[in-house]
Amino acid sequence: MRDIMYKQTDSIRVSLPDWLQRYDLPTQMPVNDMEAAMSLAIHLSELNVRHRTGGPFGALVLNLNHGQLISAAVNCVEAQCCSSAHAEIMALSLAQQRMGQWNLAETQYSPLTLITSCEPCAMCLGAIPWSGVSQIVCGATKADAESAGFDEGARPNAWKEALLERGIDVVTEVCRAPAAKVLQEYAESGQTIYNP
Amino acid sequence: MRDIMYKQTDSIRVSLPDWLQRYDLPTQMPVNDMEAAMSLAIHLSELNVRHRTGGPFGALVLNLNHGQLISAAVNCVEAQCCSSAHAEIMALSLAQQRMGQWNLAETQYSPLTLITSCEPCAMCLGAIPWSGVSQIVCGATKADAESAGFDEGARPNAWKEALLERGIDVVTEVCRAPAAKVLQEYAESGQTIYNP
Repeated sequence: MRDIMYKQTDSIRVSLPDWLQRYDLPTQMPVNDMEAAMSLAIHLSELNVRHRTGGPFGALVLNLNHGQLISAAVNCVEAQCCSSAHAEIMALSLAQQRMGQWNLAETQYSPLTLITSCEPCAMCLGAIPWSGVSQIVCGATKADAESAGFDEGARPNAWKEALLERGIDVVTEVCRAPAAKVLQEYAESGQTIYNP
Repeated sequence: MRDIMYKQTDSIRVSLPDWLQRYDLPTQMPVNDMEAAMSLAIHLSELNVRHRTGGPFGALVLNLNHGQLISAAVNCVEAQCCSSAHAEIMALSLAQQRMGQWNLAETQYSPLTLITSCEPCAMCLGAIPWSGVSQIVCGATKADAESAGFDEGARPNAWKEALLERGIDVVTEVCRAPAAKVLQEYAESGQTIYNP
């Protein structure tokens, strides 16, 4: 460890795993096809487990109506020493930095959708209204995450209603079974279930 | 804007404002002095408003018993095009990257406290249990934030109890009046109240 007197770092940097940096992501996804987008998010979550580069979670930001893929990410908590580097936060932040805009409601590709291989934890749920996405689409459920040993945090029970009230559409259980399977495989692989 | 076909960025980078990078932060704070730590967080929030570099929020991570300051941050949402770059997320992430450890419960300076000039929004509240801090200390309240026009999100009513159940101590309303004053000044300055 560096000496504590060392000046604090002036920036946070969180990088995607090498394999994802080299991954040949499509720029164009099938139009109006939630299942195709979710299948890519699940595939990335699976590759993250296989490469042992982080938790079993993948997420994308895209325009579903036109199919433009804006960002694709996985959980980077352990590898990048950053507890907030969940797949959803990574995908939203990458999309915002790529668009040069903290508000994803105001890009030339808006409205944008967040696709996530698992329902968001309390932190990611809280991040969604601040991000400017118009819709979230989830794969595995909170129950699936919990049965694999993950903790979703103190999420309000009426979380879908709270997003809808803010004009954010919510779709759940898209490709739930294959998404949940990745969580189970991770739990069985003995990799870290990282909740302090 | 760059062409959409441009390959996605491989990492997120969020930098503190130049003035904070140049700021002469103490490495040692007064021991067991929440008010002194909070005063620094409030001072940083005020400087962020004065420099027009972001929202009126400051946060620190430190060991209160021994006074070691680990990180100090402000809200960087607009300047860094990142809606999750709230002061608390910045301070936690900077501390984690400096310690080389995503879990702040397991550093040589633990237990660590998050000092925040305003009670956390739903996102930051959700991030706290994942970070490994043992305590949070807040200045301005949710009511203060809301009366200045800010939105704290769908935070559970029993948020303090939920943190306590996880073994995280919560102290509120430390230097509340000066912390709330910065929020009011920001609102009156006509700078962005950024909720999409």
